[in-house]
Amino acid sequence: MAPPRPVGSRPADKKFLRALRGEAVWPPPVWLMRQAGRYLPEYRATRAAAGDFLDLCLTPELAVEVTLQPLRRFGFDAAILFSDILMVPHGLGQKVWFEEGVGPRLEPLASPAAVATLEPQRLRERLSPVFEAVRGLKAALLAETALIGFAGAPWTVASYMIEGGSSRDFQKGRAWAYGDPEGFQGLIDLLVEATVDYLLAQVEAGAEALQIFDSWSGIWPDSEFRRWCLEPARRIVAAVKAVHPDIPVILFPRGAGVLYREVAEESGADALSLDTTVPLDWARAELQSRLCVQGNLDPVALIVGGAALDRQARRILEAFRGGPFVFNLGHGIDKTTPPGHVEQLMALLRAA
Amino acid sequence: MAPPRPVGSRPADKKFLRALRGEAVWPPPVWLMRQAGRYLPEYRATRAAAGDFLDLCLTPELAVEVTLQPLRRFGFDAAILFSDILMVPHGLGQKVWFEEGVGPRLEPLASPAAVATLEPQRLRERLSPVFEAVRGLKAALLAETALIGFAGAPWTVASYMIEGGSSRDFQKGRAWAYGDPEGFQGLIDLLVEATVDYLLAQVEAGAEALQIFDSWSGIWPDSEFRRWCLEPARRIVAAVKAVHPDIPVILFPRGAGVLYREVAEESGADALSLDTTVPLDWARAELQSRLCVQGNLDPVALIVGGAALDRQARRILEAFRGGPFVFNLGHGIDKTTPPGHVEQLMALLRAA
Repeated sequence: MAPPRPVGSRPADKKFLRALRGEAVWPPPVWLMRQAGRYLPEYRATRAAAGDFLDLCLTPELAVEVTLQPLRRFGFDAAILFSDILMVPHGLGQKVWFEEGVGPRLEPLASPAAVATLEPQRLRERLSPVFEAVRGLKAALLAETALIGFAGAPWTVASYMIEGGSSRDFQKGRAWAYGDPEGFQGLIDLLVEATVDYLLAQVEAGAEALQIFDSWSGIWPDSEFRRWCLEPARRIVAAVKAVHPDIPVILFPRGAGVLYREVAEESGADALSLDTTVPLDWARAELQSRLCVQGNLDPVALIVGGAALDRQARRILEAFRGGPFVFNLGHGIDKTTPPGHVEQLMALLRAA
Repeated sequence: MAPPRPVGSRPADKKFLRALRGEAVWPPPVWLMRQAGRYLPEYRATRAAAGDFLDLCLTPELAVEVTLQPLRRFGFDAAILFSDILMVPHGLGQKVWFEEGVGPRLEPLASPAAVATLEPQRLRERLSPVFEAVRGLKAALLAETALIGFAGAPWTVASYMIEGGSSRDFQKGRAWAYGDPEGFQGLIDLLVEATVDYLLAQVEAGAEALQIFDSWSGIWPDSEFRRWCLEPARRIVAAVKAVHPDIPVILFPRGAGVLYREVAEESGADALSLDTTVPLDWARAELQSRLCVQGNLDPVALIVGGAALDRQARRILEAFRGGPFVFNLGHGIDKTTPPGHVEQLMALLRAA
């Protein structure tokens, strides 16, 4: 007879997953967006050895290694698969590459007609190294650490696909959506389906929770936010939950402002990741009363450290104590962050 | 005996000023942020002849000319002095210049100690061409057109002064504020005083309303927003109104999201300029019930024109009809906007 599994290895007991399911866990579970990244010297070493950034994402042992690096240092409650939101365009057959000092580049979709050249049927095959990395992580993680899979939200991914890279204001995608809403809807619909497929494959490989990043949702009027951000997110959550009702989904509609409340009410998500600007008292009253909230330390306070970091972290702890809550940043960790400041933060959180 | 002044020449009768004072004026008064600018061929011609952008701002007849150009085409209800929010650093003696294709550049303030080198006592002298331009505009405008003076808000201006130019995330200023709040407060205090002085001089020269642009207020946690954005704005409004209680003040805390409500309640402003992301129904219920709202058409809808422009403009008209309202964009007009689309918008508004 097999010995009983230790308590910590039952997914339902993991602090992070308990919080996502609505439990007020204290001290709160914590992870940091972009926790595997350039602020860590060991990441920079692996990255330098890997060559291209895309190679790093698509070589399972390297993706596993960089995912684990911050866990070894800081013992976060969750690991997030090291990957990139542009894996989906890559999986669809769009040419994606990363230029040093420039960032992501894509051969831009020139017109709605180009959408027909995308190959959603080959996504799982093209992205099989990602799923292999998830399986590798699942085997490597401590029993109490949860594993998060993720994807970019359709609008954010579409904006890169149309622009051909990063942009200050994503005007091409916005102009396309206004000028040809039916054509743009075709691209969004394709991305909803591809994203569901991609997330389900991550769950099948071992992801225990999912986060959907809508990094550029904060540029739309409410009407367009509902159509291009909220409704696609709702469809993705529903489709994932139709297959895996127990997998919690976190949405990050960055910059949604007042519309965070509508997302809380209508998206079907289990948790909302709050950007730094979401006011704490409002979030407690309007959001945390409905679901788990995650966030929202200013990454600049983590760069600065010291008293400013303590003060900002304590305000967040005070606001969200007593309800379902995951401590995180309001945006990805900056590459100039001293790792010692993350240690300072972790010490504060453990003593909360 | 002098003949009676025509009705339209009494400031109190101007549509724009009536709306700012709380009256539901219909069809609504309209002006567009950055209405004098690169989307107009006549602006590009004047700009090319002027040489440097700073020369354009500081040569009164040229500043008057470009201010009037969009008025001649579109007959907006208000003219806004053609100038730049970096006039205040220039007036304080900081080196400011504009690089073609790069944007504004400043010799950055290296440390809190550098604040002592600024010369607020010389601001009015250094900026006298600005006030001369206001006087020139006052004489040149149609009697029914209101004249808006403006300044950047302290945080936004400080962010440029510290960064030395534009930046995606203004990390230097944010890090300074977190790391040395007392030193940063010294800079903000100086900018509050300089901004009050600058705005009062514009009113003395003939400005009939004032707008304060906090273009980068949407990056702070609530605590820092209150300290670095809301409180400085409140002090400026109070100081201006202590001298000129009848001059309406519009605040534009771009990206303030949920905190727009606190600004409406606590700043003392007469009107709030809404960025594109502020949801219309929420703004009507929470903001327009307290003061005049201005906004908030997506500038990308104006670039696109056609049915998308009509639809977005109509949604805004429907939302704000019946209360105090000024039609405007949610952000400055883009340089790629076809002037014909502004005509389309004006025809729609006149028929509202």
